[in-house]
Amino acid sequence: MKKFMDENFLLHNDAAIRLYHEHAENMPVIDYHCHLDPREIAENKKFRNITELWLGGDHYKWRAMRINGVDEKYITGDADDKDKFMKWAETLPYCIGNPLYHWAHLELKRYFGIDKLLSPQTAEEIWDKCNEMLRDDAFSARGLIKRSDVRLLCTTDDPADTLEYHDAIAADTAFDVAVLPTFRPDRGLNIGKPGFAGWVSKLAAVSGVDITDYSSYKAALMQRLDYFCKKGCRVSDHSLEPAVYVECSEDEAASVFEKALSGNKLDDIQIGKFKTDMMIFLGKQYSRLGWVMQLHMGCMRNNNTRQFRLLGPDTGYDAIGDTSYALALSKLLDKIEMETGLPRTILYCLNPQDNEVISALAGCFQGSGIPGKIQFGSAWWFNDNYDGIKRQLTTLAGTGLLGRFIGMLTDSRSFLSYTRHEYFRRILCNIIGEWVQQGELPDDMDLLGKIVEDISYNNANRYFGFGI
Amino acid sequence: MKKFMDENFLLHNDAAIRLYHEHAENMPVIDYHCHLDPREIAENKKFRNITELWLGGDHYKWRAMRINGVDEKYITGDADDKDKFMKWAETLPYCIGNPLYHWAHLELKRYFGIDKLLSPQTAEEIWDKCNEMLRDDAFSARGLIKRSDVRLLCTTDDPADTLEYHDAIAADTAFDVAVLPTFRPDRGLNIGKPGFAGWVSKLAAVSGVDITDYSSYKAALMQRLDYFCKKGCRVSDHSLEPAVYVECSEDEAASVFEKALSGNKLDDIQIGKFKTDMMIFLGKQYSRLGWVMQLHMGCMRNNNTRQFRLLGPDTGYDAIGDTSYALALSKLLDKIEMETGLPRTILYCLNPQDNEVISALAGCFQGSGIPGKIQFGSAWWFNDNYDGIKRQLTTLAGTGLLGRFIGMLTDSRSFLSYTRHEYFRRILCNIIGEWVQQGELPDDMDLLGKIVEDISYNNANRYFGFGI
Amino acid sequence: MKKFMDENFLLHNDAAIRLYHEHAENMPVIDYHCHLDPREIAENKKFRNITELWLGGDHYKWRAMRINGVDEKYITGDADDKDKFMKWAETLPYCIGNPLYHWAHLELKRYFGIDKLLSPQTAEEIWDKCNEMLRDDAFSARGLIKRSDVRLLCTTDDPADTLEYHDAIAADTAFDVAVLPTFRPDRGLNIGKPGFAGWVSKLAAVSGVDITDYSSYKAALMQRLDYFCKKGCRVSDHSLEPAVYVECSEDEAASVFEKALSGNKLDDIQIGKFKTDMMIFLGKQYSRLGWVMQLHMGCMRNNNTRQFRLLGPDTGYDAIGDTSYALALSKLLDKIEMETGLPRTILYCLNPQDNEVISALAGCFQGSGIPGKIQFGSAWWFNDNYDGIKRQLTTLAGTGLLGRFIGMLTDSRSFLSYTRHEYFRRILCNIIGEWVQQGELPDDMDLLGKIVEDISYNNANRYFGFGI
Repeated sequence: MKKFMDENFLLHNDAAIRLYHEHAENMPVIDYHCHLDPREIAENKKFRNITELWLGGDHYKWRAMRINGVDEKYITGDADDKDKFMKWAETLPYCIGNPLYHWAHLELKRYFGIDKLLSPQTAEEIWDKCNEMLRDDAFSARGLIKRSDVRLLCTTDDPADTLEYHDAIAADTAFDVAVLPTFRPDRGLNIGKPGFAGWVSKLAAVSGVDITDYSSYKAALMQRLDYFCKKGCRVSDHSLEPAVYVECSEDEAASVFEKALSGNKLDDIQIGKFKTDMMIFLGKQYSRLGWVMQLHMGCMRNNNTRQFRLLGPDTGYDAIGDTSYALALSKLLDKIEMETGLPRTILYCLNPQDNEVISALAGCFQGSGIPGKIQFGSAWWFNDNYDGIKRQLTTLAGTGLLGRFIGMLTDSRSFLSYTRHEYFRRILCNIIGEWVQQGELPDDMDLLGKIVEDISYNNANRYFGFGI
Repeated sequence: MKKFMDENFLLHNDAAIRLYHEHAENMPVIDYHCHLDPREIAENKKFRNITELWLGGDHYKWRAMRINGVDEKYITGDADDKDKFMKWAETLPYCIGNPLYHWAHLELKRYFGIDKLLSPQTAEEIWDKCNEMLRDDAFSARGLIKRSDVRLLCTTDDPADTLEYHDAIAADTAFDVAVLPTFRPDRGLNIGKPGFAGWVSKLAAVSGVDITDYSSYKAALMQRLDYFCKKGCRVSDHSLEPAVYVECSEDEAASVFEKALSGNKLDDIQIGKFKTDMMIFLGKQYSRLGWVMQLHMGCMRNNNTRQFRLLGPDTGYDAIGDTSYALALSKLLDKIEMETGLPRTILYCLNPQDNEVISALAGCFQGSGIPGKIQFGSAWWFNDNYDGIKRQLTTLAGTGLLGRFIGMLTDSRSFLSYTRHEYFRRILCNIIGEWVQQGELPDDMDLLGKIVEDISYNNANRYFGFGI
Repeated sequence: MKKFMDENFLLHNDAAIRLYHEHAENMPVIDYHCHLDPREIAENKKFRNITELWLGGDHYKWRAMRINGVDEKYITGDADDKDKFMKWAETLPYCIGNPLYHWAHLELKRYFGIDKLLSPQTAEEIWDKCNEMLRDDAFSARGLIKRSDVRLLCTTDDPADTLEYHDAIAADTAFDVAVLPTFRPDRGLNIGKPGFAGWVSKLAAVSGVDITDYSSYKAALMQRLDYFCKKGCRVSDHSLEPAVYVECSEDEAASVFEKALSGNKLDDIQIGKFKTDMMIFLGKQYSRLGWVMQLHMGCMRNNNTRQFRLLGPDTGYDAIGDTSYALALSKLLDKIEMETGLPRTILYCLNPQDNEVISALAGCFQGSGIPGKIQFGSAWWFNDNYDGIKRQLTTLAGTGLLGRFIGMLTDSRSFLSYTRHEYFRRILCNIIGEWVQQGELPDDMDLLGKIVEDISYNNANRYFGFGI
């Protein structure tokens, strides 16, 4: 019987052990997609206790606590930080088989040197020990990033953002990790949702473009694209829920846009037309700028209206959609490909039933001298667990080129989540190692070690053109 | 090489063996969802031979025999019981990898003490031996239930049922297993199907409510809800094929109902509106009564019209639907949650591609101090096999809280199916045991043994409030 | 550590080794579905070099090269054959985990006796050695077929084909492998696509039927059905993308047909009606003729318009559709079953998320004394890899009768693809062997060996009535 989470955690054969320790373990980290708050990095935030650091914004843990029957008071409510921690400690033992169980213990181990299992019995001791350590600078936002050997990270930013904190970080020579913005214009496409007109005003203000019609709207967005580009942005991000494609002339899209700004209600076809035209426009812009376009597909958000009204979005009430979107996505990609050529593109699906669909579709738009130009993205969110990662990697290998995969990202709001890169790399090495062990791959450590190093770091560096 | 179906069947590591034999094996059974006939329990039915017991109502075996090319005469037809058994014995060897292969041999072993494999060569001997044993009282309906250590079971009942056999069972002090009804009002929602008006008349008669309009219809249903409640009912059941949600005022639903009673044909929108209003109404009632609401989703029934005309429903001609329903289901749950709060709810999907969708959606409506309030239900029907169970458990663990799972049920028409609980528990212990063996879980048998015992029995007991 | 691709490749336990070497390995091959060019067989084509043989028409390899960033010039372009081979050799090492990695090395080993791994380092040597060997008659089209112990193969043919090459092959007594045509009338159903009217003219010409209306169209098709039947055809094939079912009278279908011939544009409903009527008509014909009906479902073709215009169809730009079609397919099968009884039918799905749906639906139309009458077909195209095959077999076993499965086909355009039968058989034996090894099946090699032999060869021979 293997010890829990020892140095060969998740590595179940010799080839895996060699691949991980000799090739993956010491590669630095590029975290090309996360939700860290640039302000916290700029201000080098320190955390008052482990509850703030661990439970402050982590809706994964919130969901687990709710499933465990914990009262909302101890989750997002006004209970005492320590009481909240105790409720989390009660919940964790029930999470066996959930990535939270591994993530939590891996974070305790790697950042705090704690090997104990978190449970009601150990909670008091762990609470004290963590809080003691959190006073150290090594546990500041930047300290945690540096200790994780992160070389570059991309936050997720609204086009109306001034990027002032990115400026501050870049200007601070004491911190040498690149913190780049990501252009995420979802609010500018959600024309059917409340707040659209307000957002357009905000965009006008920040861009200095007087938005009176669709063409000035696009001009404002282009101003922001160029602004972001100047600030080092190399990647955009969209949440398509799901992808839509409705044939639409620019005039039609313009008329929908003007209708919306005048406060008229739009039907689904109109919304679809606008989104289609915008995605084509933006895709072409990303192509022009040499950016990477990330498309996240299949989220079904804010299912619980009561809690949405209390807590707002991104609080643990999202789920997985199950509608068909392959044809719409195909048409969208095809259209951009025909007009200007696709930018490098990463396709993420939230519903793992779509893995094969996405991987096969990605294969239809490759080429142009860029290895892995269209990527089937890493196991996302509800799939970011042992089986989800294994399924994504296996499907990618079976229907695409594993050796050209750009690998893992954290997608996280927490400074402790870099262990997810370790978790991913162990699973990757174990899969490849198992193939070797069973005679399904040659024992060629030069080839396989290189592929592991590439997927861990080099492929992303080359793909995004980060040049680090 | 391991012996077939020995005492460590399906248990492939030491931790699994300990978990099963020390924690799962001796837990009693709560079978909270089955299709046993209460009359057969009330009358303590005895079976004339193994064909009646095994092949009498088991459409799983019927399908297998049809796939094997057996003539319908030997399946549901008028062939001699022994000839039918011989045809089944010819079929079973082709079922390797099918749960029928394991179920059949496990049932022979556990109930009849027969270790032989059923095949044309052994059929004669097994036929004789089983039939000999079936004369014994230990093989009566009640005898089989008692020998399986069942403490409580829930049958599946129409609201228009008088529950007279449940009364008889409850009144009989010689039988101490609780046999509770389940409220399954599908016929009252299937407004577009033939027989609806007739069913409404039946409901009027049994409830004593003169049903003249939608409000008296609801009154009649409420009478039955309260009646069932008095008879110990704690759980309802619906087959949503699939879930629908069409915004609808009560007036609209009323008008659709009255149209249907007047014999008018309804369109899909009207049917959807009625079903939506009814599900909201019933969900709120279940909440009021403190019941559990079971939703079975994704069945596509009666695909073979020719055979449906000959044999009726539930005869082996059902399949798995593939339509999208996550959004409709989300809206339905959200609506009930907003109005009265959801009752405890179990979501079952027939299409395993929906596992992640269902598990993630369940996570959006948790809380209220009830651990595991919204459950992702056990692998259902076509999924009730080794891989289906493994997938359900793994998805549940990866996206929810395995430790709060209420576990297995038989969903069966047969008194021999309790071995499915054994089958499930072995798979559960093997999965957890494998995690321990590989260092993915700590070797903490106190924690894991408790979780196994909870999933085997305690969680269901607490969840339904059976208090046994 | 096991040696790469040794004699027990993919066989990871003793039972698997015995099953493969004693039962599967030496069974001959029936390749009941492939895309070989009958002309190349008739003319006993020889290949000028390994590039022509390997890369000439293999869009699997083309995709891989494109994903690797290779310029189209070296794929389908006018680059030198040797340079193309070098680009392929650069690509292959990145394909770990892709079936191409195994297929390529298995083909080098079995046909060329080459054990080396193909890479830029070995490419020169392998290029020379292969080309040297290709001069030998053993590497002609027929030589490769004979060396693969193929006893019968079915090509895929248009109803307007004269089958002259099939005639030539049949007349040549020097070649004793049966090469039968398959009736694939897709072009006759694609009424909404350009080229339909032209195809109808071609059909009129070859059938000698003056097609003036729907009924003469059907007469022409019947002429071809009978003609194909005379030429030994026993099987038809359709690509349903996806299945459709729109209620339609014959008059309606006739009017749609006449509209199309007059050059009018059709809407989706009209197209759906025509296709539905045609499928019912053809299904009944197949039933009359005693043929097998193959339905391939869920392909989403020609996603990349730019490349489609340059290269045409079947060049590596197809993907997997994700739309729902279970109900339409069910209705179609039900309709044919009611009218004349279904022909033996094989259902293939391209999206593996549909595996359970297809396997369960197949179970609804079985019987009539034909074992496995409705088959859930072998893992198709994007699923034709280790995991895809394992999933298909496991789902089939879990929800159907593995013992009645008709097994593998190549679906290939290449004369080297027969190793896919070996690949499949190894996986099959490994799955069954693992069950035995773990005590989930009895160690009954008489039973299991027979099942393996049946799935490898006998079941297909009986099912199609080839009588060889």
